[in-house]
Amino acid sequence: MNGAECLLRTLLANEVDLCLMNPGTSEMQFVCALDRVPGMRAVLCLFEGVCSGAADGYARMLAKPAATLLHLGPGLANALANFHNARKARSPVVSLVGEHATQHLLYDAPLSSRIEAFARTVSGWVRVLERADQIGAAAAAAVQASFGPPGQVATLIVPADYSWSPAGEPGPAAPRPVRHAPDSAAVREAARILSSGQPAGLLLSGSALLARGLRASGRIAAATGARVFADRFGARLERGAGLFAPVLVPYFPEAAEAALAGLKHLILVEAQPPVSFFAYPGRRSCVAPEDCAFHVLASAEEDGAAGLEALSQECAAGGFSAPLAGPARPELPHGLPLTAGAAGRAIGALLPEGAIISDEAVSSGGDIWPHLAGAPPHDHLPVSGGSIGHGLPAALGAALAAKGRKTIALEADGSGMYTLQSLWTMAREGLDVVAVILANRRYRILEIEMRRTGAPAIGPLASGMIDIGRPDLDWVKLAAGMGVPAARALTADEFIAAFAVAMKESGPRLIEAVIA
Amino acid sequence: MNGAECLLRTLLANEVDLCLMNPGTSEMQFVCALDRVPGMRAVLCLFEGVCSGAADGYARMLAKPAATLLHLGPGLANALANFHNARKARSPVVSLVGEHATQHLLYDAPLSSRIEAFARTVSGWVRVLERADQIGAAAAAAVQASFGPPGQVATLIVPADYSWSPAGEPGPAAPRPVRHAPDSAAVREAARILSSGQPAGLLLSGSALLARGLRASGRIAAATGARVFADRFGARLERGAGLFAPVLVPYFPEAAEAALAGLKHLILVEAQPPVSFFAYPGRRSCVAPEDCAFHVLASAEEDGAAGLEALSQECAAGGFSAPLAGPARPELPHGLPLTAGAAGRAIGALLPEGAIISDEAVSSGGDIWPHLAGAPPHDHLPVSGGSIGHGLPAALGAALAAKGRKTIALEADGSGMYTLQSLWTMAREGLDVVAVILANRRYRILEIEMRRTGAPAIGPLASGMIDIGRPDLDWVKLAAGMGVPAARALTADEFIAAFAVAMKESGPRLIEAVIA
Repeated sequence: MNGAECLLRTLLANEVDLCLMNPGTSEMQFVCALDRVPGMRAVLCLFEGVCSGAADGYARMLAKPAATLLHLGPGLANALANFHNARKARSPVVSLVGEHATQHLLYDAPLSSRIEAFARTVSGWVRVLERADQIGAAAAAAVQASFGPPGQVATLIVPADYSWSPAGEPGPAAPRPVRHAPDSAAVREAARILSSGQPAGLLLSGSALLARGLRASGRIAAATGARVFADRFGARLERGAGLFAPVLVPYFPEAAEAALAGLKHLILVEAQPPVSFFAYPGRRSCVAPEDCAFHVLASAEEDGAAGLEALSQECAAGGFSAPLAGPARPELPHGLPLTAGAAGRAIGALLPEGAIISDEAVSSGGDIWPHLAGAPPHDHLPVSGGSIGHGLPAALGAALAAKGRKTIALEADGSGMYTLQSLWTMAREGLDVVAVILANRRYRILEIEMRRTGAPAIGPLASGMIDIGRPDLDWVKLAAGMGVPAARALTADEFIAAFAVAMKESGPRLIEAVIA
Repeated sequence: MNGAECLLRTLLANEVDLCLMNPGTSEMQFVCALDRVPGMRAVLCLFEGVCSGAADGYARMLAKPAATLLHLGPGLANALANFHNARKARSPVVSLVGEHATQHLLYDAPLSSRIEAFARTVSGWVRVLERADQIGAAAAAAVQASFGPPGQVATLIVPADYSWSPAGEPGPAAPRPVRHAPDSAAVREAARILSSGQPAGLLLSGSALLARGLRASGRIAAATGARVFADRFGARLERGAGLFAPVLVPYFPEAAEAALAGLKHLILVEAQPPVSFFAYPGRRSCVAPEDCAFHVLASAEEDGAAGLEALSQECAAGGFSAPLAGPARPELPHGLPLTAGAAGRAIGALLPEGAIISDEAVSSGGDIWPHLAGAPPHDHLPVSGGSIGHGLPAALGAALAAKGRKTIALEADGSGMYTLQSLWTMAREGLDVVAVILANRRYRILEIEMRRTGAPAIGPLASGMIDIGRPDLDWVKLAAGMGVPAARALTADEFIAAFAVAMKESGPRLIEAVIA
């Protein structure tokens, strides 16, 4: 068995059975082995950032890694921005990168580069294979490392000659690291704070944002009066009717400070102290009150949901009910102009249960967000690392992970352009993904941010750099060019009609919602 | 004057007057300053890899840097693949990357990353600003560093608060480093070898591939019988009727070894010893004969063209004429099926003088290449670092550099997808670029390479990973979606008609040549 086959068999033995790839010559032995070793779903992407973003979306839904297969340093380079998002989401990913054959490394061939240096920028674990017979053990170690905890990108760099050389037996099924519940002292301390009478809150991230953690948080809130907040950049938030809804920490620092005002204690559950997305002249970075003390119930390495359940018990909150009187499901916005808010109302009204929302709506997101609160239970995946070009690939990966569920990518026209190649893979794989492009023909968020950084009036040249019209992007044509059926909506009614069809039918589809 | 304005003024004082950008919040002060400080051409790209590839194409044509302006680590990450190509082409580029405000670096905000680590993978010079008042001097130093020699990517990382803080005076117009002619001992040694009677050759790269070096090489070849070769990955080759044509070192090692067979001496002129692009089982990486000795006439730091002129003089070759009897201009391929060769003949027959060809035709390139030899003089820009996604951005940058000249991107359908966002900027800027997409619906090169790496028969799953049909890409729609008029050609006559119109009219245009 050659190294490529050994690698493939080791991945499968470790239940890594999806490989998102954009391979080159150095990876051809691995590709060739797909036909000899059954069990790996191989998905081709036409740009590497699609592979890494999809692996992130997949990991968020299944809490296990997909593999990515990329070509040398430059192929990995194209994947780094979305690996950055995966890193911030603590998503497990096994990143396989081909390298030149070892004897070729003595020469400065055109594609030679320091792959390890590229890899270290985003990976929590990197190994460069030094012998062909290490390949099985190293691949098993990579899978294990990807789980952390917390999850991380584990990169294995595989020289081409090790792929084509004999490599011995596949590696073992490595044990999966366990996430431990927080120790009881941390739970007791949190309970003491919540019963102290001082204004206190919980800030949830990671697994604490899933239903189990939310239910426990709701009981705690009901029993103790604690305010419960959610990290807006957590990997995955379960949301919708019947679920306790924590307050999302707002994006801009003024609103975030207002939301957190008055707190004397903030108990962190797999979360970091809350910080502004960007810094601005004369503002603090931390958005919690200056006299707010931070306490850790569960670190990112620990099981925050288990910690919340223990805390609920410690607070004797078992008999309390979470306050669930959330907003009603919105009415369809018939007869209105098409705005982000109107699109949000239509989506909230029509969303099916179990939908997955990959949210990269950027400046339109705030107007959509409240309208989804009353929709049936669904998952919400944000851009955890703030690196643009995540929404479409993450939707692709989520759809690969969660068959039978409708996936919706809420995209802006600006952010969608970074990794629009995702649409082709959605078409090839026949995935049930609906991309909603909120087209305002601008980098609207930058218009807002420009003023916030203290810049004086925006002149015509500056305006040209945040205007992405001239020419307008035609997303219907872009989608059709990659095999995805698409429609354009200019009014709320057109959007309702297109979105209703998309919810009823299966398969990839794009709706350009012109909200300019 | 704040730091952003100081930075902008320093660039202009150093004749850096083009900035290719995809800015974010941290860079908004720079964008805003564009309206206060006249003289900078600001060009917006919708993906960062377009910025870096365009800066490379621009530098190859003008031998001076453009600036790129990118947003934090992930923005830089998206540019790295084409910066890799710039690095290998020794192109000067001033890469400006915004960083969070310094006080914000204490917190692990979502977009926080180690920007310097990203930058070092491709940059020969990196500086992280440590005080606002360094900005002028540092920017001048970055421009100076970009020139090398040899040229390199010089990255300056600018925290947002230094952009909005007072920063003192702009930096000076820094002296440009001089490329020295090789010393006379190297010239005499090369002349001694060429007169030794042993089989000897010259291998040209860098500036030796421009007209001045080619003319001198032609005289040397005529006078001494030396065989003259060109690095196929050199940044820019001047080519066409009336120019001496060195032999391009072939891509595959068997052909390269055959081309170089018999040489006892190879004299390197800004070139490295010739090496195979990839390694293969049982083959040497170096493609020169094992008993071939290498000699350096000019290093990459030196002026190879001056070295060749000195060598021509030393060989008393002044009275000799380069052998110019190249191939005649091809006939138009009327009535033929559309193949890469037929497209090449049409291009060779219709190419105007002074055209610039950005060549990322990959597996179609070899069939096009010979037909351009007899065309009027033109420039040929290859993918120097082998990193795919270079052809369209480099064409964009070359067109920005060389007004009044027709630029042609020879693209494959696979490679074109990595940075297709280039088309939008071509449309916005009204650039005179014609993108020819050679659509074979496959990663054809990988089909060839897969067999070469010793892989056995290609099964259906492996075949699916090199097949980029299912669905076919529709490049006419993709182009139209970004505002570029496009046509599809299915026969040689349709291609001739479309290409003839494109040569006559000005402005961006795309031709999908279906050669499947």
